[in-house]
Amino acid sequence: MRIGVLGTGMVGRAISGKLAELGHDVQVGSRTAGEGKVPFAEAAAHGELVFNCTSGRGALEALAAAGTDNLAGKTLIDVSNPLDMSGDRPALLVANTDSLGEQIQRAVPEARVVKALNTMNCRLMVDPAAVPGDHVVFVAGDDEPAKAEVKALLGEFGWPSHRVIDLGDLSGARSMEMYVMLWVRMIPFAGGPMFNIAVAR
Amino acid sequence: MRIGVLGTGMVGRAISGKLAELGHDVQVGSRTAGEGKVPFAEAAAHGELVFNCTSGRGALEALAAAGTDNLAGKTLIDVSNPLDMSGDRPALLVANTDSLGEQIQRAVPEARVVKALNTMNCRLMVDPAAVPGDHVVFVAGDDEPAKAEVKALLGEFGWPSHRVIDLGDLSGARSMEMYVMLWVRMIPFAGGPMFNIAVAR
Repeated sequence: MRIGVLGTGMVGRAISGKLAELGHDVQVGSRTAGEGKVPFAEAAAHGELVFNCTSGRGALEALAAAGTDNLAGKTLIDVSNPLDMSGDRPALLVANTDSLGEQIQRAVPEARVVKALNTMNCRLMVDPAAVPGDHVVFVAGDDEPAKAEVKALLGEFGWPSHRVIDLGDLSGARSMEMYVMLWVRMIPFAGGPMFNIAVAR
Repeated sequence: MRIGVLGTGMVGRAISGKLAELGHDVQVGSRTAGEGKVPFAEAAAHGELVFNCTSGRGALEALAAAGTDNLAGKTLIDVSNPLDMSGDRPALLVANTDSLGEQIQRAVPEARVVKALNTMNCRLMVDPAAVPGDHVVFVAGDDEPAKAEVKALLGEFGWPSHRVIDLGDLSGARSMEMYVMLWVRMIPFAGGPMFNIAVAR
């Protein structure tokens, strides 16, 4: 599948590396083109499906640069977190009654935004077996076929379907992004970022 | 131990019932006294330790009625969630850069506030074995001896120490309260409210 990955940070590199390993035709987009990367708009145009792996602070600007026409009708997987690390304590740039996922959907109304994978370390996103146990990944989005496409891709990444929790429509992104603040606070307990949550019931 | 429990809803009844079963000398406080319950101020004065099990919307008013003098120097376990169910979707009355736990600490500065137990169904709070697995409970607070007292009480409730995650100072209450929005969204997946999260690492 032709896939565009926006963002060349740790998350973008983990996702694009795994997609290439799986045999997908990947183009990685960056603010500035360079070795192994093209401008945002070119990566978005290339993809039948597009990952947003930019920083939360830069996401809306990156998607504007990618171009709404290049994203129209496509599944846009939003992995970003609206983290604000500028204060004394980590906080969110948006929370509670809105989310970055929903802001992105409003900015690119013709894309089919699915929030996914933002609740864990990027190594774990593409290699769930790196941590033992039935830990989970969340998805939320308004477009059911787009969510089905994302779930299939999660399966390729190694996530069995019973560990994919569908939180419903895109407002579920609020809870996925707010959870990240708990994830950050759990890092000392977990002894590092390679952990995830499982559901006991 | 003499313990005051503020609130006669499901949470207050679960907590006070368990405390009585454990042999503690419990008084349950309500806005209006009645059978088996006394006014907030009397329950607070009775307790060497006090649980706040009021609704998030009513917590600050209940603590004002309990009286700062009756809470001074005491460990105040805040189990409440600032849930706003009045809109189309559940939201929080406070989030991100503040929390109800911190609001309560500011309202009752001489109490030693510990946020705990707000991240699960009340039956599970006092009977963790009702759900199998190494699921966890969080605590956050600025006063270390108060947190130690709460952890000991959690042990009496059935929480082994390795399943008690100390998130540090009281700002950790933000992440515990924001997580509740994810908890609410997971209920359909979990098939009901009797579930909790475990940490896979």
